[in-house]
Amino acid sequence: MTVPQPAKVGDRIKEIDTPALLLDLEVLERNIVRMQKLADAAGVALRPHAKSHKSADIALKQIAAGAVGLCAQKVSEAALLVANGVGDVLVSNQVVGARKIGQLASLATRARIGVCVDDPGNVEQIAQAARHFGGHIEMLVEVDVGMGRCGVDPADAPGLCQKIIATEGVGFGGLQAYNGRAQHVRSHADRGAAIEASATAVRRVLSDLEASGVACPRVTGAGTGTFEFEAASGLWNELQCGSYVFMDADYSRNLDERGTEIDTFGHSLFILAGVLSIAQPGRAVVDAGLKCLSVDSGLPVVSGLAGAVYAGASDEHGTLTTGDGNGPALGDQVRLIPGHCDPTVNLHDWYVGVRGDTVEAVWPVTARGAMF
Amino acid sequence: MTVPQPAKVGDRIKEIDTPALLLDLEVLERNIVRMQKLADAAGVALRPHAKSHKSADIALKQIAAGAVGLCAQKVSEAALLVANGVGDVLVSNQVVGARKIGQLASLATRARIGVCVDDPGNVEQIAQAARHFGGHIEMLVEVDVGMGRCGVDPADAPGLCQKIIATEGVGFGGLQAYNGRAQHVRSHADRGAAIEASATAVRRVLSDLEASGVACPRVTGAGTGTFEFEAASGLWNELQCGSYVFMDADYSRNLDERGTEIDTFGHSLFILAGVLSIAQPGRAVVDAGLKCLSVDSGLPVVSGLAGAVYAGASDEHGTLTTGDGNGPALGDQVRLIPGHCDPTVNLHDWYVGVRGDTVEAVWPVTARGAMF
Repeated sequence: MTVPQPAKVGDRIKEIDTPALLLDLEVLERNIVRMQKLADAAGVALRPHAKSHKSADIALKQIAAGAVGLCAQKVSEAALLVANGVGDVLVSNQVVGARKIGQLASLATRARIGVCVDDPGNVEQIAQAARHFGGHIEMLVEVDVGMGRCGVDPADAPGLCQKIIATEGVGFGGLQAYNGRAQHVRSHADRGAAIEASATAVRRVLSDLEASGVACPRVTGAGTGTFEFEAASGLWNELQCGSYVFMDADYSRNLDERGTEIDTFGHSLFILAGVLSIAQPGRAVVDAGLKCLSVDSGLPVVSGLAGAVYAGASDEHGTLTTGDGNGPALGDQVRLIPGHCDPTVNLHDWYVGVRGDTVEAVWPVTARGAMF
Repeated sequence: MTVPQPAKVGDRIKEIDTPALLLDLEVLERNIVRMQKLADAAGVALRPHAKSHKSADIALKQIAAGAVGLCAQKVSEAALLVANGVGDVLVSNQVVGARKIGQLASLATRARIGVCVDDPGNVEQIAQAARHFGGHIEMLVEVDVGMGRCGVDPADAPGLCQKIIATEGVGFGGLQAYNGRAQHVRSHADRGAAIEASATAVRRVLSDLEASGVACPRVTGAGTGTFEFEAASGLWNELQCGSYVFMDADYSRNLDERGTEIDTFGHSLFILAGVLSIAQPGRAVVDAGLKCLSVDSGLPVVSGLAGAVYAGASDEHGTLTTGDGNGPALGDQVRLIPGHCDPTVNLHDWYVGVRGDTVEAVWPVTARGAMF
């Protein structure tokens, strides 16, 4: 006995069980096409990040639209993508430990696999596994370009690149240069300045590599908040944006050059919640709390119910303030735009894809819980 | 292909794949016995909340220790408990909509089932379904005793109780009186005052019911933060504590009468994380971020690694500051005490139960994702 599907194909929206992960397919498709066009126009490759959607169905749509492959953040996530038809995955993260490295090397016998490294011992271990399994692994050196998380200093990057080149069983794939911290900086100018600082770090590494006669095939990175800067830099030739397919509430608070909220991409992802208590005036309690939406980047935003505010989340409840009168009725459905899509999606087993008022698809969240 | 188990019975801790939900079975068992003894000594029933652990294995241990049944927060959660051997479940929440009400009524033909209500129309709908399925549902009137979420005002409770008594197919089970807001108030005196205010509300309802000649079989509520007050009140005769089995970092910040942190229960639940980057001095990045631990009640606390602080969470990473020298090595395991257990557990498919250095049990998180 497992968790049931919240809907079946052909259902009307009002028949969907709540809380459910609702996907507006028209907006999703528009977002996928728009990002691909922007990448094409800039002359850079698009390798969307599957950490946002964890869905083989969406990944295959991105590839059909022109993406060169996908990024994944975990080996188990990559394995589920490959098992479901994705042939090219870059694990944009470090893979450490014999068990995970073995899985990575095994995967590389069935698909084109890349991985990021920031440690020479880790290079050795992965190369050993690659030789053992007989597959080819492309290694990218992760450079800390201002995020303060993983990655070597720019000064240490060329040495690690040289080590990869000198190691049998793996290939040098280039640089991973992602500045996650810049993604949610609100002002356009400040985001641009942050990526310019990242670009300075990348330029330094490229120039050192060039001086040693090392060709760098790829500089990959960027996210939905900053990709226009990386795409225009002349340095990055691959973008890893993920959230653009959904656009969470937090990303849409970023401002464009004119200081208005960015609307390049539309909100395609919602939590469809149900009202379970209206016992108190001015308040409606919905069945969507911390176990079906992530509040780390702020509370969800109510969509399509004027005056209603999602004011507080507990484990299984969301409390809406609804002002005077005009609140929803018991059992009514309410759409919420998640504050942060990635960890919200990971709480669900199913996407309910709708077009107009009809459920067109029920997709599994392929890599839900794939944290290894 | 699904998410793999992080360990198998007989493994050593160092063989567990990370990140994993690690359960210290000895501490868990001690917590279960201790809470049962406290309830027994106070002469009140214990009906632990399964929303914390979502585990049939732990639920059955609680029943074996003397619990009268379990609470669940969702119908789908209750259904999974019943399917796995729990015979008595109170859904301590409102159940709204034909689909969910049908599931509840169907469940009541296979187990002893209770549910909370705060709306007269909802009473009608549930009773209709109960008559249709032929099972018996016990209804508890939820009273808002200071939480400001679901529940009727104390003044409106007696009328709703009378309505249940007059309705065929359901039985009047008493009052649900839970003050969730009081659970994490730090000062002992302030928690006591909050529950005294809740008790005043309960007393008013009981006195109104008595004046109408209505017997109230049960007053149920309380959580790990306040149960001593409800147990001593002479009003509550059933406790719904859940978190005591695990004790998250946030609960252990509550203070006792002497102003010291409460240590009635021990920490039994950890996230076992792995170090995936030590490229920068004074910093270690672990593989446990927002997708395997919930930060809504604060960041996790590092256990057993002196000087290390979990300073920031991103989706798949946790950044530890480790001070000068003595940081962990690449691949080392680090134990984290989750800030908030309930939504953390819900991110995982497996408990890895250890005794000493050995994996003794790998239990499914039975109701993981059961949000309907």
